[in-house]
Amino acid sequence: MQQVEIIAQNPVSETESVTTTDLKTYRMNHTMIRVKSQEASLKFYQETMGMTLQRVSENKEASFNLYFLGYGAPSSEKSANGVNPTASREGLLELTWNYGTEKEEGKVYHDGNSEPQGFGHICVSVDNLDEACKRFESKGVEWKKRLTDGRMKNVAFVLGMFAQLCTLSSLRC
Amino acid sequence: MQQVEIIAQNPVSETESVTTTDLKTYRMNHTMIRVKSQEASLKFYQETMGMTLQRVSENKEASFNLYFLGYGAPSSEKSANGVNPTASREGLLELTWNYGTEKEEGKVYHDGNSEPQGFGHICVSVDNLDEACKRFESKGVEWKKRLTDGRMKNVAFVLGMFAQLCTLSSLRC
Repeated sequence: MQQVEIIAQNPVSETESVTTTDLKTYRMNHTMIRVKSQEASLKFYQETMGMTLQRVSENKEASFNLYFLGYGAPSSEKSANGVNPTASREGLLELTWNYGTEKEEGKVYHDGNSEPQGFGHICVSVDNLDEACKRFESKGVEWKKRLTDGRMKNVAFVLGMFAQLCTLSSLRC
Repeated sequence: MQQVEIIAQNPVSETESVTTTDLKTYRMNHTMIRVKSQEASLKFYQETMGMTLQRVSENKEASFNLYFLGYGAPSSEKSANGVNPTASREGLLELTWNYGTEKEEGKVYHDGNSEPQGFGHICVSVDNLDEACKRFESKGVEWKKRLTDGRMKNVAFVLGMFAQLCTLSSLRC
Protein backbone atom coordinates (compact mmCIF):
# COMPACT_ATOMS: atom_id res chain seq x y z
CA MET A 1 0.00 0.00 0.00
CA GLN A 2 1.20 3.47 -0.83
CA GLN A 3 2.40 5.56 2.10
CA VAL A 4 1.40 9.14 2.86
CA GLU A 5 3.73 10.84 5.33
CA ILE A 6 2.19 13.45 7.64
CA ILE A 7 4.40 16.22 9.04
CA ALA A 8 3.81 19.47 10.94
CA GLN A 9 3.93 23.01 9.58
CA ASN A 10 3.89 24.32 13.15
CA PRO A 11 5.64 23.00 16.26
CA VAL A 12 3.49 20.67 18.31
CA SER A 13 4.21 22.78 21.40
CA GLU A 14 2.37 25.67 19.75
CA THR A 15 -0.64 23.66 18.63
CA GLU A 16 -1.16 21.29 21.57
CA SER A 17 -3.97 23.39 22.99
CA VAL A 18 -5.61 23.90 19.60
CA THR A 19 -8.40 21.42 18.93
CA THR A 20 -9.05 22.15 15.27
CA THR A 21 -7.34 21.41 11.98
CA ASP A 22 -8.04 23.21 8.72
CA LEU A 23 -7.76 21.09 5.55
CA LYS A 24 -7.30 24.23 3.47
CA THR A 25 -3.90 24.79 5.09
CA TYR A 26 -2.58 21.32 4.14
CA ARG A 27 0.16 21.08 1.51
CA MET A 28 1.45 18.22 -0.59
CA ASN A 29 4.98 18.89 0.56
CA HIS A 30 7.12 16.31 -1.22
CA THR A 31 7.51 13.07 -3.12
CA MET A 32 10.17 10.62 -1.97
CA ILE A 33 12.13 8.36 -4.28
CA ARG A 34 15.20 6.26 -3.55
CA VAL A 35 18.33 6.85 -5.60
CA LYS A 36 21.34 4.62 -6.18
CA SER A 37 23.93 7.42 -6.29
CA GLN A 38 23.48 10.70 -4.45
CA GLU A 39 26.27 12.23 -6.50
CA ALA A 40 24.74 11.43 -9.88
CA SER A 41 21.20 12.26 -8.79
CA LEU A 42 22.08 15.58 -7.15
CA LYS A 43 23.99 16.52 -10.30
CA PHE A 44 21.06 15.56 -12.53
CA TYR A 45 18.30 17.28 -10.56
CA GLN A 46 20.35 20.44 -9.97
CA GLU A 47 22.44 20.91 -13.11
CA THR A 48 20.11 19.38 -15.67
CA MET A 49 16.63 19.84 -14.19
CA GLY A 50 17.52 23.19 -12.58
CA MET A 51 16.29 22.45 -9.07
CA THR A 52 17.98 23.89 -6.00
CA LEU A 53 18.95 21.93 -2.90
CA GLN A 54 16.57 23.07 -0.18
CA ARG A 55 17.55 20.88 2.75
CA VAL A 56 19.84 17.97 3.64
CA SER A 57 19.27 15.50 6.46
CA GLU A 58 22.36 13.39 7.18
CA ASN A 59 21.73 10.24 9.20
CA LYS A 60 25.18 8.76 9.52
CA GLU A 61 24.31 6.30 12.29
CA ALA A 62 21.56 4.81 10.18
CA SER A 63 23.67 5.11 6.98
CA PHE A 64 21.32 7.20 4.87
CA ASN A 65 20.96 10.81 3.77
CA LEU A 66 17.86 12.69 2.62
CA TYR A 67 18.07 15.50 0.06
CA PHE A 68 15.14 17.86 -0.55
CA LEU A 69 15.16 19.66 -3.89
CA GLY A 70 12.75 22.12 -5.48
CA TYR A 71 12.44 25.13 -7.72
CA GLY A 72 12.99 28.64 -6.46
CA ALA A 73 15.32 30.05 -3.84
CA PRO A 74 16.47 27.70 -1.07
CA SER A 75 14.64 27.90 2.22
CA SER A 76 16.50 29.35 5.17
CA GLU A 77 18.44 26.56 6.82
CA LYS A 78 16.74 27.06 10.17
CA SER A 79 13.16 28.03 10.76
CA ALA A 80 12.09 30.60 13.31
CA ASN A 81 9.73 28.21 15.05
CA GLY A 82 11.85 25.11 15.22
CA VAL A 83 10.11 22.98 12.62
CA ASN A 84 11.32 21.76 9.25
CA PRO A 85 11.89 25.00 7.30
CA THR A 86 10.46 23.49 4.12
CA ALA A 87 7.24 22.16 5.70
CA SER A 88 5.01 24.85 4.25
CA ARG A 89 6.24 24.35 0.70
CA GLU A 90 4.75 22.27 -2.06
CA GLY A 91 6.42 20.48 -4.93
CA LEU A 92 9.63 19.22 -3.35
CA LEU A 93 11.47 16.08 -4.37
CA GLU A 94 13.04 14.01 -1.60
CA LEU A 95 15.91 11.76 -2.61
CA THR A 96 16.78 8.98 -0.19
CA TRP A 97 20.31 7.67 -0.54
CA ASN A 98 21.34 4.60 1.42
CA TYR A 99 25.13 4.61 1.78
CA GLY A 100 26.86 2.13 -0.49
CA THR A 101 24.15 1.53 -3.08
CA GLU A 102 26.19 3.57 -5.55
CA LYS A 103 28.83 0.82 -5.49
CA GLU A 104 26.40 -1.97 -6.34
CA GLU A 105 26.47 -3.46 -9.79
CA GLY A 106 23.58 -2.68 -12.13
CA LYS A 107 20.14 -1.46 -11.24
CA VAL A 108 19.38 -0.99 -7.54
CA TYR A 109 15.92 0.58 -7.53
CA HIS A 110 12.77 0.02 -9.54
CA ASP A 111 11.23 2.84 -11.57
CA GLY A 112 7.60 1.75 -11.40
CA ASN A 113 7.04 1.85 -15.15
CA SER A 114 8.33 -1.61 -15.99
CA GLU A 115 6.69 -4.54 -14.22
CA PRO A 116 5.61 -4.45 -11.45
CA GLN A 117 4.08 -1.08 -12.30
CA GLY A 118 3.07 1.56 -9.77
CA PHE A 119 4.70 4.97 -9.55
CA GLY A 120 4.80 6.74 -12.90
CA HIS A 121 6.70 10.01 -13.01
CA ILE A 122 7.20 13.47 -11.62
CA CYS A 123 6.23 16.39 -13.86
CA VAL A 124 7.98 19.74 -14.26
CA SER A 125 6.17 22.65 -15.90
CA VAL A 126 8.30 25.19 -17.75
CA ASP A 127 7.90 28.71 -19.11
CA ASN A 128 8.98 27.92 -22.68
CA LEU A 129 8.57 24.32 -23.75
CA ASP A 130 10.71 24.42 -26.90
CA GLU A 131 13.62 26.27 -25.31
CA ALA A 132 13.50 24.17 -22.14
CA CYS A 133 13.73 20.99 -24.22
CA LYS A 134 16.59 22.45 -26.27
CA ARG A 135 18.38 23.19 -23.00
CA PHE A 136 17.76 19.65 -21.70
CA GLU A 137 19.09 18.32 -25.01
CA SER A 138 22.21 20.47 -24.62
CA LYS A 139 22.69 18.89 -21.18
CA GLY A 140 22.76 15.47 -22.79
CA VAL A 141 19.55 14.03 -21.36
CA GLU A 142 18.20 10.72 -22.52
CA TRP A 143 14.65 11.08 -23.85
CA LYS A 144 11.79 8.71 -23.27
CA LYS A 145 9.69 10.91 -25.57
CA ARG A 146 10.81 14.01 -27.42
CA LEU A 147 8.26 16.78 -28.03
CA THR A 148 8.09 15.69 -31.67
CA ASP A 149 7.53 11.98 -30.91
CA GLY A 150 4.02 10.53 -31.01
CA ARG A 151 0.75 12.37 -31.09
CA MET A 152 1.11 14.58 -28.02
CA LYS A 153 3.27 17.50 -29.18
CA ASN A 154 2.97 19.40 -25.91
CA VAL A 155 4.59 16.84 -23.60
CA ALA A 156 8.13 15.49 -23.38
CA PHE A 157 9.60 12.82 -21.10
CA VAL A 158 13.17 12.89 -19.83
CA LEU A 159 14.73 9.81 -18.28
CA GLY A 160 16.07 10.51 -14.82
CA MET A 161 18.54 9.03 -12.41
CA PHE A 162 16.17 6.79 -10.58
CA ALA A 163 17.30 3.27 -11.17
CA GLN A 164 20.00 3.29 -13.72
CA LEU A 165 23.48 1.96 -13.86
CA CYS A 166 25.43 5.18 -13.55
CA THR A 167 28.73 6.32 -14.90
CA LEU A 168 29.38 9.33 -12.75
CA SER A 169 31.45 11.09 -15.35
CA SER A 170 28.57 11.20 -17.82
CA LEU A 171 25.29 13.07 -17.74
CA ARG A 172 23.91 10.24 -19.82
CA CYS A 173 24.67 7.82 -17.02
CA MET B 1 14.83 4.78 -15.29
CA GLN B 2 12.59 7.28 -13.61
CA GLN B 3 10.64 9.57 -15.92
CA VAL B 4 10.35 13.34 -15.64
CA GLU B 5 7.47 14.76 -17.68
CA ILE B 6 7.93 18.25 -19.11
CA ILE B 7 4.85 20.40 -19.82
CA ALA B 8 4.22 24.04 -20.73
CA GLN B 9 2.99 26.82 -18.47
CA ASN B 10 2.41 28.98 -21.55
CA PRO B 11 1.05 28.05 -24.98
CA VAL B 12 3.77 27.24 -27.48
CA SER B 13 2.25 29.75 -29.93
CA GLU B 14 3.09 32.51 -27.47
CA THR B 15 6.65 31.41 -26.78
CA GLU B 16 7.79 30.24 -30.20
CA SER B 17 9.67 33.47 -30.90
CA VAL B 18 11.19 33.55 -27.41
CA THR B 19 14.68 32.08 -27.32
CA THR B 20 15.22 31.96 -23.56
CA THR B 21 14.01 29.82 -20.68
CA ASP B 22 14.23 30.79 -17.03
CA LEU B 23 14.81 27.94 -14.58
CA LYS B 24 13.42 30.05 -11.75
CA THR B 25 9.95 29.85 -13.31
CA TYR B 26 9.94 26.03 -13.39
CA ARG B 27 7.58 24.18 -11.07
CA MET B 28 7.42 20.61 -9.88
CA ASN B 29 3.82 20.32 -10.96
CA HIS B 30 2.74 16.81 -10.06
CA THR B 31 3.57 13.23 -9.13
CA MET B 32 1.83 10.44 -11.02
CA ILE B 33 0.85 7.11 -9.51
CA ARG B 34 -1.37 4.38 -10.93
CA VAL B 35 -4.42 3.30 -8.94
CA LYS B 36 -6.48 0.14 -9.13
CA SER B 37 -9.85 1.76 -8.39
CA GLN B 38 -10.63 5.37 -9.25
CA GLU B 39 -13.66 5.27 -6.98
CA ALA B 40 -11.79 4.14 -3.87
CA SER B 41 -8.78 6.36 -4.54
CA LEU B 42 -10.80 9.51 -5.26
CA LYS B 43 -12.76 8.87 -2.07
CA PHE B 44 -9.59 8.38 -0.05
CA TYR B 45 -7.65 11.39 -1.34
CA GLN B 46 -10.65 13.71 -1.16
CA GLU B 47 -12.63 12.58 1.90
CA THR B 48 -9.81 11.29 4.06
CA MET B 49 -6.76 13.27 2.91
CA GLY B 50 -8.79 16.42 2.23
CA MET B 51 -7.55 17.13 -1.28
CA THR B 52 -9.77 18.70 -3.93
CA LEU B 53 -10.17 17.44 -7.48
CA GLN B 54 -8.44 20.01 -9.68
CA ARG B 55 -8.77 18.49 -13.13
CA VAL B 56 -10.01 15.34 -14.88
CA SER B 57 -8.79 14.07 -18.24
CA GLU B 58 -11.00 11.33 -19.66
CA ASN B 59 -9.46 9.25 -22.40
CA LYS B 60 -12.23 6.85 -23.30
CA GLU B 61 -10.71 5.68 -26.58
CA ALA B 62 -7.53 4.66 -24.81
CA SER B 63 -9.47 3.37 -21.76
CA PHE B 64 -7.86 5.47 -19.06
CA ASN B 65 -8.67 8.55 -17.00
CA LEU B 66 -6.33 10.97 -15.24
CA TYR B 67 -7.34 12.74 -12.03
CA PHE B 68 -5.35 15.69 -10.66
CA LEU B 69 -5.81 16.40 -6.96
CA GLY B 70 -4.29 18.98 -4.67
CA TYR B 71 -4.90 21.19 -1.68
CA GLY B 72 -6.67 24.52 -1.96
CA ALA B 73 -9.45 25.72 -4.21
CA PRO B 74 -9.89 23.94 -7.55
CA SER B 75 -8.40 25.64 -10.59
CA SER B 76 -10.78 27.12 -13.10
CA GLU B 77 -11.72 24.42 -15.57
CA LYS B 78 -10.45 26.37 -18.55
CA SER B 79 -7.42 28.59 -18.65
CA ALA B 80 -7.39 31.99 -20.34
CA ASN B 81 -4.47 31.08 -22.56
CA GLY B 82 -5.45 27.64 -23.69
CA VAL B 83 -2.97 25.55 -21.70
CA ASN B 84 -3.54 23.14 -18.84
CA PRO B 85 -5.07 25.33 -16.11
CA THR B 86 -3.06 23.60 -13.40
CA ALA B 87 0.33 23.90 -15.14
CA SER B 88 1.61 26.71 -12.91
CA ARG B 89 0.80 24.87 -9.69
CA GLU B 90 3.02 22.73 -7.52
CA GLY B 91 2.19 19.77 -5.32
CA LEU B 92 -0.48 18.00 -7.35
CA LEU B 93 -1.11 14.27 -7.29
CA GLU B 94 -2.04 12.64 -10.59
CA LEU B 95 -3.93 9.37 -10.37
CA THR B 96 -3.92 7.22 -13.49
CA TRP B 97 -6.81 4.78 -13.67
CA ASN B 98 -6.84 2.18 -16.43
CA TYR B 99 -10.42 1.02 -16.96
CA GLY B 100 -11.12 -2.40 -15.54
CA THR B 101 -8.25 -2.76 -13.08
CA GLU B 102 -10.74 -2.26 -10.26
CA LYS B 103 -12.29 -5.61 -11.20
CA GLU B 104 -9.04 -7.56 -11.00
CA GLU B 105 -8.44 -9.86 -8.08
CA GLY B 106 -5.87 -8.82 -5.50
CA LYS B 107 -3.08 -6.33 -5.86
CA VAL B 108 -2.69 -4.64 -9.23
CA TYR B 109 0.04 -2.05 -8.65
CA HIS B 110 3.29 -2.05 -6.74
CA ASP B 111 3.88 0.47 -3.93
CA GLY B 112 7.67 0.74 -4.23
CA ASN B 113 8.33 0.00 -0.56
CA SER B 114 8.32 -3.78 -0.75
CA GLU B 115 10.77 -5.40 -3.18
CA PRO B 116 11.61 -4.19 -5.77
CA GLN B 117 11.96 -0.87 -3.95
CA GLY B 118 11.92 2.53 -5.62
CA PHE B 119 9.22 5.13 -5.00
CA GLY B 120 8.69 5.75 -1.30
CA HIS B 121 5.82 8.07 -0.40
CA ILE B 122 4.12 11.40 -0.83
CA CYS B 123 4.16 13.75 2.16
CA VAL B 124 1.41 16.07 3.36
CA SER B 125 2.22 18.87 5.82
CA VAL B 126 -0.56 19.94 8.19
CA ASP B 127 -1.29 22.88 10.46
CA ASN B 128 -1.87 20.85 13.63
CA LEU B 129 -0.23 17.45 13.71
CA ASP B 130 -2.12 15.96 16.65
CA GLU B 131 -5.56 17.08 15.49
CA ALA B 132 -4.89 16.08 11.89
CA CYS B 133 -3.94 12.59 13.02
CA LYS B 134 -7.03 12.38 15.23
CA ARG B 135 -9.11 13.32 12.21
CA PHE B 136 -7.40 10.68 10.03
CA GLU B 137 -8.04 8.14 12.81
CA SER B 138 -11.72 9.15 12.85
CA LYS B 139 -11.83 8.51 9.09
CA GLY B 140 -10.65 4.95 9.73
CA VAL B 141 -7.22 5.12 8.10
CA GLU B 142 -4.78 2.26 8.39
CA TRP B 143 -1.51 3.42 9.93
CA LYS B 144 1.96 2.39 8.86
CA LYS B 145 3.29 4.47 11.77
CA ARG B 146 1.31 6.39 14.34
CA LEU B 147 2.80 9.58 15.80
CA THR B 148 3.50 7.68 19.01
CA ASP B 149 5.23 4.72 17.29
CA GLY B 150 9.02 4.56 17.17
CA ARG B 151 11.51 7.29 17.89
CA MET B 152 10.26 9.99 15.52
CA LYS B 153 7.31 11.58 17.32
CA ASN B 154 6.78 14.28 14.72
CA VAL B 155 6.01 12.07 11.73
CA ALA B 156 3.12 9.72 10.98
CA PHE B 157 2.54 7.44 7.99
CA VAL B 158 -0.91 6.65 6.63
CA LEU B 159 -1.41 3.76 4.23
CA GLY B 160 -3.10 4.88 1.03
CA MET B 161 -5.04 3.39 -1.82
CA PHE B 162 -2.14 2.62 -4.06
CA ALA B 163 -2.03 -1.08 -4.51
CA GLN B 164 -4.46 -2.67 -2.18
CA LEU B 165 -7.27 -5.07 -2.59
CA CYS B 166 -10.18 -2.72 -2.09
CA THR B 167 -13.59 -3.17 -0.62
CA LEU B 168 -15.32 -0.07 -1.87
CA SER B 169 -17.72 0.07 1.02
CA SER B 170 -14.93 0.49 3.56
CA LEU B 171 -12.51 3.33 4.14
CA ARG B 172 -10.10 0.71 5.41
CA CYS B 173 -10.15 -0.92 1.99
